[in-house]
Amino acid sequence: MAIITIVGSGMMGSALAFPATDNGHTVRLVGSPLDRDIITEAKASGWHKTLQRKLPDGLEYYQIEELETALVSADLLICGVSSFGVDWFWQNVLNSISPSLPVLAVTKGMLNTPEGGFISFPQYYQNCLPDKKLILCAIGGPCTSYELADRHHSAVTFCGDDLAVLEQLRQLMGTSYYHISLSRDVTGVESAVALKNIYALAVTLAVGLAEKVKDGPPHYNTQAALFGQSIKETGRILELLAADSSNIYLAAGDLYVTIFGGRTRMIGSLLGQGQSFTKAMASLAGVTLESVVIAQRTAVFIREQIKQKKAKAIDFPLLLHIDDIISRGRPVKLPWQDFLR
Amino acid sequence: MAIITIVGSGMMGSALAFPATDNGHTVRLVGSPLDRDIITEAKASGWHKTLQRKLPDGLEYYQIEELETALVSADLLICGVSSFGVDWFWQNVLNSISPSLPVLAVTKGMLNTPEGGFISFPQYYQNCLPDKKLILCAIGGPCTSYELADRHHSAVTFCGDDLAVLEQLRQLMGTSYYHISLSRDVTGVESAVALKNIYALAVTLAVGLAEKVKDGPPHYNTQAALFGQSIKETGRILELLAADSSNIYLAAGDLYVTIFGGRTRMIGSLLGQGQSFTKAMASLAGVTLESVVIAQRTAVFIREQIKQKKAKAIDFPLLLHIDDIISRGRPVKLPWQDFLR
Repeated sequence: MAIITIVGSGMMGSALAFPATDNGHTVRLVGSPLDRDIITEAKASGWHKTLQRKLPDGLEYYQIEELETALVSADLLICGVSSFGVDWFWQNVLNSISPSLPVLAVTKGMLNTPEGGFISFPQYYQNCLPDKKLILCAIGGPCTSYELADRHHSAVTFCGDDLAVLEQLRQLMGTSYYHISLSRDVTGVESAVALKNIYALAVTLAVGLAEKVKDGPPHYNTQAALFGQSIKETGRILELLAADSSNIYLAAGDLYVTIFGGRTRMIGSLLGQGQSFTKAMASLAGVTLESVVIAQRTAVFIREQIKQKKAKAIDFPLLLHIDDIISRGRPVKLPWQDFLR
Repeated sequence: MAIITIVGSGMMGSALAFPATDNGHTVRLVGSPLDRDIITEAKASGWHKTLQRKLPDGLEYYQIEELETALVSADLLICGVSSFGVDWFWQNVLNSISPSLPVLAVTKGMLNTPEGGFISFPQYYQNCLPDKKLILCAIGGPCTSYELADRHHSAVTFCGDDLAVLEQLRQLMGTSYYHISLSRDVTGVESAVALKNIYALAVTLAVGLAEKVKDGPPHYNTQAALFGQSIKETGRILELLAADSSNIYLAAGDLYVTIFGGRTRMIGSLLGQGQSFTKAMASLAGVTLESVVIAQRTAVFIREQIKQKKAKAIDFPLLLHIDDIISRGRPVKLPWQDFLR
């Protein structure tokens, strides 16, 4: 059995402790500086306050000051921080680990480069630590933390450069309910699952559109039209990134699950109802939404590609409209004619 | 303004009268022999008994005996019959029309050929009437009849051999809420939207799985995994048919809308709960389900391709499992390991 250290004890990082402990591994859950209360309470009672679940028996808890101890003899490091914690993670964790320790990141997102590129977190980490060749892998796919903790069937993809390493990680983490496929196309997997956040916001505009009429019927045709347009644009972005277009199935599954709940749906619905972006965001009381950040970053990338004449605006009307709504305060007015190409 | 004759006054055929009359055309709605009561009631009161909507003012109603009159000077014939009416349609309608009258079919489905092929209804019609060169077009895309009649934004694709004809049809039928894209890939469009019926049944197995536990939480991760697998297999079928893989966006949108309701969801849910196929179908009281028929036909096609060594069973585990459930009475046991390729 192996020793698996999870850094970042938010909902997703903690949920990964379920398949890991079910496989009989020693699992050490380390809170980031933001997770202090979660670790204190879980250590005392086993209860995870945001995941709202009892964590597995035998799980070991560490505050961030105990990171070094938590990493002793570890066979795998799982990065469970959110996209807002990536700089903290490489500066405070990746910077000090042994380069032979495989890292599996569950953080979803993409980053702009100064040259107009669009890179995944594993690429970013390696760029930040150019003198240290790390073994960086990542998890993509439609998997909410609650349902993973409830051991519902979930299918994800582990991606990384080395298939042999990925196969080892699958052996460590795969269970009868956590189904893992493998891919060497890190950009394809990571961009497909990051983009779903933007497009979930787009599809839920139609949810809000329906809610404008009190007790009115849902607008599934409109949602489906936006879903189709989302898949079309995602395919075009994968192409721009020279990623494997077969990752579209990951984007579709992840988009499907993201539409059903959470803050992205709430914001999309409020915008669809006619609220301004500023007003809709006020209901989040200062929480920064990953879907908004990724929409803006993707728009930066696409607008740069357009400037460089590598892409055409007409191919991304939904993405650019979403960016107009959130970055320029424009009202929702879906450009239906532009979807027909 | 044009004269548009719709034959088949079921829900979808009748719903198409909304954009057509909104554009100011003369619209003639002709009931098939199965639609007699619908036409009688609609003629008397304007009410469509299955669509549960008042039909547009000015719509003209015809029983099937009046077909010839309904076709006088028509500019467009819309075929609104279901997939079970295609033979009736070519024998009784297509057989006698002028070959210069464009035909736009909204019937969804695909058919097996004796040689192991898999063809769309437009192809089938032309094969049945080899001596008569018809102008055959078809509608694909996520569009429920109720919502079209409610004038919700809906996006569909008109497909056919001749882009100039398709553009004319778009001019006739497109409105501010009925958005039409055009495609010359009839097989791609028609197969993409037919396959969604099979896979909607597959995804809703997970709905039933969740319902096994009374008041239990939904299993969105599992639905999303099956959604992703569905898109993966749909892409492979498009490839086998040498169709344009970009039609995957149509399949995704249509799959999304089909999951939300109707009899396919009901059957998928009952199967997922653990009911046998025979018992689940008994709740439909003898109604034949299009999703069951298309699943069986697609399985016939895929099994023939496997026999001819043009495809591998391992690439279609979900489709073949659905076929095992409905054609061989097997219990639901999702082949998760086979999904990971």
